[in-house]
Amino acid sequence: MGNISPFAPKQEPHLPAIDGVRLATAAAGIRYPGRTDLLLALFDPGTSVAGVLTKSKTASAPVDWCRAHLAHGMARALVVNSGNANAFTGKRGRKAVELTAQAAAEAADCLEADVYVASTGVIGEPLDAAKITGLLPRLVQAAKPHGFADAARAIMTTDTYPKLATRKAEIDGVEVTINGIAKGAGMIAPDMATMLGFLFTDAAMDPQVLRASLDPAVDNTFNAITIDGDTSTSDTLLVFATGKAAARGAPRIVHPDDLRLAGFRMALAELMHDLALQIVKDGEGLGKFVTVEVTGAESKRAARAIAKSIANSPLVKTAIAGEDPNWGRIVAAVGKAGEAADRDRLSIRLGDLQVAKDGEVAPGYREKDGAAYMRQPEIVITVDVGVGKESATIWTCDLTKDYIAINADYRS
Amino acid sequence: MGNISPFAPKQEPHLPAIDGVRLATAAAGIRYPGRTDLLLALFDPGTSVAGVLTKSKTASAPVDWCRAHLAHGMARALVVNSGNANAFTGKRGRKAVELTAQAAAEAADCLEADVYVASTGVIGEPLDAAKITGLLPRLVQAAKPHGFADAARAIMTTDTYPKLATRKAEIDGVEVTINGIAKGAGMIAPDMATMLGFLFTDAAMDPQVLRASLDPAVDNTFNAITIDGDTSTSDTLLVFATGKAAARGAPRIVHPDDLRLAGFRMALAELMHDLALQIVKDGEGLGKFVTVEVTGAESKRAARAIAKSIANSPLVKTAIAGEDPNWGRIVAAVGKAGEAADRDRLSIRLGDLQVAKDGEVAPGYREKDGAAYMRQPEIVITVDVGVGKESATIWTCDLTKDYIAINADYRS
Repeated sequence: MGNISPFAPKQEPHLPAIDGVRLATAAAGIRYPGRTDLLLALFDPGTSVAGVLTKSKTASAPVDWCRAHLAHGMARALVVNSGNANAFTGKRGRKAVELTAQAAAEAADCLEADVYVASTGVIGEPLDAAKITGLLPRLVQAAKPHGFADAARAIMTTDTYPKLATRKAEIDGVEVTINGIAKGAGMIAPDMATMLGFLFTDAAMDPQVLRASLDPAVDNTFNAITIDGDTSTSDTLLVFATGKAAARGAPRIVHPDDLRLAGFRMALAELMHDLALQIVKDGEGLGKFVTVEVTGAESKRAARAIAKSIANSPLVKTAIAGEDPNWGRIVAAVGKAGEAADRDRLSIRLGDLQVAKDGEVAPGYREKDGAAYMRQPEIVITVDVGVGKESATIWTCDLTKDYIAINADYRS
Repeated sequence: MGNISPFAPKQEPHLPAIDGVRLATAAAGIRYPGRTDLLLALFDPGTSVAGVLTKSKTASAPVDWCRAHLAHGMARALVVNSGNANAFTGKRGRKAVELTAQAAAEAADCLEADVYVASTGVIGEPLDAAKITGLLPRLVQAAKPHGFADAARAIMTTDTYPKLATRKAEIDGVEVTINGIAKGAGMIAPDMATMLGFLFTDAAMDPQVLRASLDPAVDNTFNAITIDGDTSTSDTLLVFATGKAAARGAPRIVHPDDLRLAGFRMALAELMHDLALQIVKDGEGLGKFVTVEVTGAESKRAARAIAKSIANSPLVKTAIAGEDPNWGRIVAAVGKAGEAADRDRLSIRLGDLQVAKDGEVAPGYREKDGAAYMRQPEIVITVDVGVGKESATIWTCDLTKDYIAINADYRS
């Protein structure tokens, strides 16, 4: 720990202010000494919110809170802490969320129902809400339009760098901005990638329109990344739209099928892709960044299942860590996915290198070429399973001794 | 590698001869220098065989061969090699199996269809059948009733000790013997545990009776263990019954419901349990042996799915390696299984220590007691999910830096 991922962005992106969003952070001392661990975001009245939450059957108290309040789709405040996930904390956990929402509502002069809460960190330990609530009035006073980089830092756990991204789009000729921050690192898996992600835009749209823009993008971004196949109790992705661009002439979109959304949706998907890949590239202990493409599958679902089987196979992941072009393990992972695949038409490429074809080692393939390819920091595995026309891509990383070290020592 | 698992049996069990079975081994030089890697077992005429094979969609050529020939249920010879799995080797792989079966049939003077073949080791590399076929005439000559320990050694790959077990049972008052050998280590997962297992008995029964005895035992033994959640292309479990006990008065059982089989079935299940646990206890790089019990589930299937989710979670496995009583990760693993579980009635025990109850940390639980428990070499995790009456047990091991070292370096 402490070493920054070799895949960290060379330069931290600069995020502009978003009209209607103000941010503040503090060191609440929840777990980590000497750093910020509390984020407050305030939104102007009229802000829409949409979200995607973990499907875990043991979801955290904050996730339950967000699920209940996303129904009405309006937001005035977001409170996020790192260091303690407030998950599996029973009644005390629910109480901690309520106290937090009450305190935020009071400080920000809004309804409790318009406050969203997210927590990340250790599971099963009571969260002392007083550490948060006592700071909220001061944070409300301190909140400023800039500060996305500080916000991204405050929500980190074992992340080695803050995840930030920004995009511009036009809605009916008026420019809008989308900013995003995220944290990931441990327990990253599809369905959905275990992480926190918060997106902010000045675009103007109703909550159900925001939701309809978010959902399709999740499948190919946050749900298409995996570190270790584990899914958390706390996955939370929220997008807030302040609507302030309306003052500059942007239309308020009220129908999900409005074609004027095309550019916004593309920008949103791109930004989510950017953040999702930043999360994988900060996978715990990773040495290599890995793209798994499956083609020739019977259905998109099957293609994803096979790609996930490869991406989550400890044997494939350790072979990559060892720079071993052990494509036999890829074959085994295809087989165990249980989806249709024609063993005798299977084709495997490592980058541009044809390794296997028609169910056996490719003519002319030389192990030393495979080994040379595996020494690259970024590995692309392409598998054609020979039964159909559908494809899917999953992004992951290798499984290294450092992953074990980080996760065996996390709480000590 | 090279270090013997701390859980290896203190004393290697002695396996008696089985009337109608003869064994021989040789060093064929397939991959490993200076050790045996080829096993021939010969069976007297009238030997029944039953088996369970991998469900992998990319099964190896030997698995295909066995599946085709198990239909008729009779056996005269078994040829097993280690070092090369002959999986994903295309037409050449099928040819290698055919050549092996032909050569064994010729040497043993039997039908090709009565020869069973199994291979374990690296995937995707052509297997040179000549290395095997040339040795078979000599092995037929050398085959002897004793030699189960040598047989178990010849089929090892990254195993650190040979797996052997023996049981006695009575059928209608006549004693019969069951011997078993197995290899496991890497790629062990339920459904079915990736491994080779060969069982031998002098009991007399028709193939379909043998199959009916084998199937129910597999679920709670070889399919209830997992090392890394990976499943291989080569899983093969075969049981051979020579029927020689009939000469001592044992009845030949022809109906699967014959009540005289009760003792035999229990002994068979016990022997398989013994071998399955020996496999887990030799998991690659393991430091701890872990039993995961799930109770209070909606169905047996759900209980197994939740137990497997816990047992296969890299975060749970690394916490165990780090001797960290991080029960929050157990909660997360329950949640991600996707099966019915009542978060607010969830109970977790580490051994006899109540860690969580009614959805939160148990009253009086002290972290230092949990930490002390985790220093034991054998860990029992019991989770009650609070929604029903069904239960299941899965056996596994922790995930250590040594696992990564072994699997990153396997082929180098």
